[in-house]
Amino acid sequence: MPDSPVCAILFKMNIKIGPDFSPSKIVCVGRNYAEHAAELGNEVPKEPLLFLKAPSALVFDGDTIVMPPQSQQVEHEGELAVVIGRDCKNIADDEDPFQYVQGYSCLNDVTARDIQRADVQFTRGKSFDTFCPIGPHIETELDVTDLKVSCRVNGEIKQKGRTSQMVFPVEFLIRYISRQMTLKAGDVIATGTPSGVSKMKTGDVCEVEIEGIGVLRNSVV
Amino acid sequence: MPDSPVCAILFKMNIKIGPDFSPSKIVCVGRNYAEHAAELGNEVPKEPLLFLKAPSALVFDGDTIVMPPQSQQVEHEGELAVVIGRDCKNIADDEDPFQYVQGYSCLNDVTARDIQRADVQFTRGKSFDTFCPIGPHIETELDVTDLKVSCRVNGEIKQKGRTSQMVFPVEFLIRYISRQMTLKAGDVIATGTPSGVSKMKTGDVCEVEIEGIGVLRNSVV
Repeated sequence: MPDSPVCAILFKMNIKIGPDFSPSKIVCVGRNYAEHAAELGNEVPKEPLLFLKAPSALVFDGDTIVMPPQSQQVEHEGELAVVIGRDCKNIADDEDPFQYVQGYSCLNDVTARDIQRADVQFTRGKSFDTFCPIGPHIETELDVTDLKVSCRVNGEIKQKGRTSQMVFPVEFLIRYISRQMTLKAGDVIATGTPSGVSKMKTGDVCEVEIEGIGVLRNSVV
Repeated sequence: MPDSPVCAILFKMNIKIGPDFSPSKIVCVGRNYAEHAAELGNEVPKEPLLFLKAPSALVFDGDTIVMPPQSQQVEHEGELAVVIGRDCKNIADDEDPFQYVQGYSCLNDVTARDIQRADVQFTRGKSFDTFCPIGPHIETELDVTDLKVSCRVNGEIKQKGRTSQMVFPVEFLIRYISRQMTLKAGDVIATGTPSGVSKMKTGDVCEVEIEGIGVLRNSVV
């Protein structure tokens, strides 16, 4: 079996992601879809707007999103996640950023919108435990130029967009971030969310679906 | 030797910190000294203002701070770092937060002030590689209620304060942060900087000194 090139390719395309997944950082990009920036009353930034989510917020497909008592407004933000495969720093203009990518996954950048607004800094409102579902697996062979990204709550489509609508595309983001800080193998880049974010409540089931990857499903408790 | 209680205590008081130190996150507290908040034109926050520094920014005593080409205004921020010793979450009012502490160290929350202001989000301006010197070691037996904190550039005192001047004291911070996100063993809390921050230039030597811990010394290149 391991001698078969077909098996090798199939094996490579889909990597499990679960509790042993421990990125040294989760770098997120804010306001990377124009319509989402507008729906929250923000301008599109001139450079990628970076922030970090705490890795302690990570959960996986099928896990629950736990409402923190501090917030009255917890919202979903479905987006494409890039998982870095090899350490990289200062990727040059003529270098291919995709060589440093292990693969792609769905990510829900769960956000306590009321706390995000009150703090101005995004950290606390986006770093509660369980606020970073990722999964259902890492897809290693994928062209991410123009993929459908959607997010459903209880089966109803709330967010809908295409990766081609990103203000700063994936290739640009990887190169840009590598020039601000070393990206380590396993690190995650959350590439921003399309418009349609909405409040979740206890009992909801939230699904982030990305074409070519699959569905990340989490219920809210 | 290992049977001697004196040796055991001496060994326990001072833990080496170097490249194998890899916290899962570095949680920082902004504007935690009133005079520093004022010198940057900010109000003292009603709750601790949290942000994260990328662990890829970590360097140690004797390492160099590297000026990134993106910034024209890189400043020092000397402060007390708390190193967590055991995972903790939702520390109760009647529980002692210090039982979760491994020890304390000096930290320089190096900041590209121009980028911090431009981005509003603190992440990028504070997460360039080498922007988080910590050391020279972890001091495990220390009362941090009222320690002198200072920061010198080329021997000249720039920042001076006492931990008793913190808006939110160490005990409060550990409990508070544990209620926002799980703190893992090895995680770092940077407790905020006193007033006197100033711009550094190539060739400078920056020293953060905290009473009872020692001196963290880094040169700027």
